[in-house]
Amino acid sequence: MSSENFLVQGFRAAAVNSGIRGKDRLDLALIVSDKPASVAGVFTTSLVKAAPVLLDMERCKTGKAQAILVNSGIANACTGEEGMRLARLTTGMAADALDIAPELVQVCSTGIIGQQLELACFQRGIPKAARNLSAEGLGDVALAIMTTDTFRKIAVRTAFIDGKPVKLLGLAKGAGMIMPNMATMLSFILTDAKVDHDLLQSILKKAVAETFNAITVDGDTSTNDTVLLMANGLAEHPPIAEDRPEALSAFAAVLEDLCKELALMIVRDGEGATKLVTIRVQGAATEAQADQAARTVANSNLVKTAFFGEDANWGRIIAALGRSGAQFDQRQVDIAFDGIFMVREGLGQGKGVEEQATAVLKKREFIVTIDLHAGQGRKEIHTCDFSLDYVKINADYRS
Amino acid sequence: MSSENFLVQGFRAAAVNSGIRGKDRLDLALIVSDKPASVAGVFTTSLVKAAPVLLDMERCKTGKAQAILVNSGIANACTGEEGMRLARLTTGMAADALDIAPELVQVCSTGIIGQQLELACFQRGIPKAARNLSAEGLGDVALAIMTTDTFRKIAVRTAFIDGKPVKLLGLAKGAGMIMPNMATMLSFILTDAKVDHDLLQSILKKAVAETFNAITVDGDTSTNDTVLLMANGLAEHPPIAEDRPEALSAFAAVLEDLCKELALMIVRDGEGATKLVTIRVQGAATEAQADQAARTVANSNLVKTAFFGEDANWGRIIAALGRSGAQFDQRQVDIAFDGIFMVREGLGQGKGVEEQATAVLKKREFIVTIDLHAGQGRKEIHTCDFSLDYVKINADYRS
Repeated sequence: MSSENFLVQGFRAAAVNSGIRGKDRLDLALIVSDKPASVAGVFTTSLVKAAPVLLDMERCKTGKAQAILVNSGIANACTGEEGMRLARLTTGMAADALDIAPELVQVCSTGIIGQQLELACFQRGIPKAARNLSAEGLGDVALAIMTTDTFRKIAVRTAFIDGKPVKLLGLAKGAGMIMPNMATMLSFILTDAKVDHDLLQSILKKAVAETFNAITVDGDTSTNDTVLLMANGLAEHPPIAEDRPEALSAFAAVLEDLCKELALMIVRDGEGATKLVTIRVQGAATEAQADQAARTVANSNLVKTAFFGEDANWGRIIAALGRSGAQFDQRQVDIAFDGIFMVREGLGQGKGVEEQATAVLKKREFIVTIDLHAGQGRKEIHTCDFSLDYVKINADYRS
Repeated sequence: MSSENFLVQGFRAAAVNSGIRGKDRLDLALIVSDKPASVAGVFTTSLVKAAPVLLDMERCKTGKAQAILVNSGIANACTGEEGMRLARLTTGMAADALDIAPELVQVCSTGIIGQQLELACFQRGIPKAARNLSAEGLGDVALAIMTTDTFRKIAVRTAFIDGKPVKLLGLAKGAGMIMPNMATMLSFILTDAKVDHDLLQSILKKAVAETFNAITVDGDTSTNDTVLLMANGLAEHPPIAEDRPEALSAFAAVLEDLCKELALMIVRDGEGATKLVTIRVQGAATEAQADQAARTVANSNLVKTAFFGEDANWGRIIAALGRSGAQFDQRQVDIAFDGIFMVREGLGQGKGVEEQATAVLKKREFIVTIDLHAGQGRKEIHTCDFSLDYVKINADYRS
């Protein structure tokens, strides 16, 4: 991807080393819009919310934002009053450096829980970042927010609203503590579209439900999950509005597509992951039961280790379905791996089929389709396999 | 433990190789009471129940049982009508060999899901087992039911009812697909106590709730979980009855203690486990929330890999609490490892304390106490760490 792709008019960014994560690594970044933008945010559903999440939720209500300050290395979660004070203080420092109001600065942190930020790092890093803002700087921001990620996650799209091009650019990070609703993942999406805050919020919420909230790496939900969408309105189309459903759905579809690309990148980069597996449940009694069933299969350690072992062990899938809470008749369940029906009406289809299914499991990406034949409910959850490296990464993360 | 401990008057048993699992391994067993016994059973809560579970649930209603037929290697789960037919047929063969009514035979299977039993193995194995029944044979049964278990699980107790000794002997298997309510675990408990079926059932249910249903290895629940308790009434005490609360509670306490020993053996032998960790939640708003919170922490892969890495990473514990659904104020949470308070009022207590907590994590068994300061709810869940060997075992289980 050439760096030209990373441009959205009116947005500039920079990432620097501030000392939070040693002397070499990019660990602090600023994203700035030339003018105040409509902002929308979706945040962790965890009861335990990090200080930056609490601050962003409050500031999102104003509907406007002009900058995002982000650091990796320390999550500023479980840091009490002092953590809140530091979150406010560092956004104030960014506001000063950018000469904007502090309320227009959003802030995100990712990293270790329970440690306090060191103010000196922000005193060093923020002015340096503010001096180095450039249209091309977003590529570096994607590097600066990586933790256990192995590659940077950027996606771009162009929507056409009333024939006018609208650019969307998304950054994301996340590889562990990833589970819908949501996980240690951050994503920043920048667009020059013209949309007011309230509508932007409802569009984002819907897009996140089917993308970032439909993935899992390890079933763990983080204290810091944040998706921020800034729309600075510099594109030339008439505003996207609820009474213009064509423009609205054109924008929403492209946004969801962008979010899906970023979300799947997170699963592909899941800690230790070697495979991306889509669990598609159909024929559930209700949508909610489809969701339950798909998530239970997608989070089962036994299912995920079988994927890693390339073992077409459908017994573990049906066992996970059985404990999921979804209602169905086990004598009607079909299970297919990329169209190879291993199970029909609850029964295995024999060795020949098993060999074909095993060939599917050797692929890096495949779909498991489960039909419960109990109704019309459908849901897709994207997961990864569970490898030795997951344990290695997580047994040593802090050491 | 000497083999003498494995005796309960009126019970005999034998385990044989029937060919289900090759030529050498014990894989089929019979446990027989000299006279019909009161029976109680607790079974998997999975919607997907194996054929033997369905048959046992039906037969438990009669209140009486005289024999248990058990095999390892094949679970007879997801095997349809043919699986039910084979479950009935094999219990009929056992009944013939023992010259008792088929309805008095309970049956359990553990092993791979989705394969049919081979009748020839039972035709070979059942008569051989029936011929070899002995009071000492129970030790072999504990071997025959092992799958990924690394040691056999037997526990014995003596209760005193009205001054008369009552013997209880329990066998169990289980190492993976272990999660409360329940997991691939089988347990058979034999006693010479005199108790009628209905009371026995309520005593067993209560004991299981706090023992076998308070453990987790991997959060997966099996299709085959079964605890069967047979009481043949040969002991000399007056019957245990609801209007004799002293006798009732003496028996119930010893039964629960026995179940706890077996349940903790299962966790210690959890697939790949190197540590037994008790998650004790107190101060939850309700008992149900204490249960939710303790189970969520006990099943978090990130928490369990940190235990394996001997990393006192309390951030992962508080993150799990945050997504558990329990209600609390993060500014009031205390977390201690064997009495070392790493977190007080939601805040880490610094490097000195972390070093002490790390020393606790190096132990093979320890307790994590979480006080939510939100009420009186309490729950203990016993879990294990999550090691590289868990993935190795489960990525290759069938190969």
